[in-house]
Amino acid sequence: PPEGVLRGSPIAGVVLTGGEIDAIAGLLTLREGHAFGIRATATVCATLAANPIFQALPADRVPRLMTLPDQPFPLGGLTATLFRVPGKRPLHAEAAGHEIAETDDTVGVEIVDGGRRMIFIPGCAAITEAMVERIDGADLLFIDATLWRDDEMVAGGYSAKTGQRMGHVSISGENGVLDRLAGCRIEHKVLIHINNTNPVLLAKSLQRARVLRLGWRVAHDGLEFNL
Amino acid sequence: PPEGVLRGSPIAGVVLTGGEIDAIAGLLTLREGHAFGIRATATVCATLAANPIFQALPADRVPRLMTLPDQPFPLGGLTATLFRVPGKRPLHAEAAGHEIAETDDTVGVEIVDGGRRMIFIPGCAAITEAMVERIDGADLLFIDATLWRDDEMVAGGYSAKTGQRMGHVSISGENGVLDRLAGCRIEHKVLIHINNTNPVLLAKSLQRARVLRLGWRVAHDGLEFNL
Repeated sequence: PPEGVLRGSPIAGVVLTGGEIDAIAGLLTLREGHAFGIRATATVCATLAANPIFQALPADRVPRLMTLPDQPFPLGGLTATLFRVPGKRPLHAEAAGHEIAETDDTVGVEIVDGGRRMIFIPGCAAITEAMVERIDGADLLFIDATLWRDDEMVAGGYSAKTGQRMGHVSISGENGVLDRLAGCRIEHKVLIHINNTNPVLLAKSLQRARVLRLGWRVAHDGLEFNL
Repeated sequence: PPEGVLRGSPIAGVVLTGGEIDAIAGLLTLREGHAFGIRATATVCATLAANPIFQALPADRVPRLMTLPDQPFPLGGLTATLFRVPGKRPLHAEAAGHEIAETDDTVGVEIVDGGRRMIFIPGCAAITEAMVERIDGADLLFIDATLWRDDEMVAGGYSAKTGQRMGHVSISGENGVLDRLAGCRIEHKVLIHINNTNPVLLAKSLQRARVLRLGWRVAHDGLEFNL
């Protein structure tokens, strides 16, 4: 807890980038009386509303602030903006379809403090021109790096799903993270949301050597940046 | 994963003792293709059904086996039985009331293998005569020990809620775990679900010394029993 209080947390706000379980289930461990605001698109707010388990975070203490893409909003002393990226509905909502589209289901978030700019895209099925333009010149980028290649889980016998089927871009390939962002100037660039089949996790893999050589970092627990 | 498979888990079944977040949210980390069965009362199954996020566990792979209290069912090579205990609705369903009652909202589970008998009661608002009778002679008991005393969180300035308001019995007091079970023969008896305000967690507390002297163990990560 912060100094001077018996119970508490330094978390003042939560920005949701989608309605997938790994994006929203963490809210259930932030309950128990802690006050903070949730920022999310209408689609993601609807997911929370459709699941009464989230009523454990009562509206009078944890307001849900429905937020439009491309509309900046204050976040502590910073300014943040959600932006749409290609994605699919969350796994638990796939009964309605799993086509890839640029909707409010999946967004990135840009956070600025005036001088510095950080971009967080934990999930995206492709990197659009608009995304490349936004990313160019960023001081810090965290981006979806679920798989090394799209058929990695199928080829390895782990799953019948490709990365595309799961709504995730891959690191390699002509539409992958490395190639699509090769022309961008980015001060610090970090691969996140890495699946346990992804060879960039292996200390001595050629794939890891390649991303490091290109100036990327592979996220790990405890990673910190000061901008 | 078990030997011989690329992905997997040794978990063959999950028995839910209530619909509270700490009882059901863990299901969301058991998804991703793993097949197992869920055993729960009608009330708890209704909570899962009312929250579409749990559709990430599809019925064809993770069947929900609605289970009546006091009806034994097979669980791996063992036999298990749910039994009602005093409790309240889960926090996220308190809009409908939070009175203490013996309903399908909160159950314990008894597991037998013929010779040995284990009882698991992670939450209960009181220890009834029926519970005392069931617990007597058990080889292993895990039981709700949220607070040391009912007003502990209020007195300490941590919360406005008593243990009773949260649906939990306390360790001390004439209706507490120690006194109510003082006459029971129990081979191994373990205090679980312990709140971080509970002095039994402190290595040198008088309260911890007292429970240890009475033959209780205070649960900790990695605790294992072989019966």
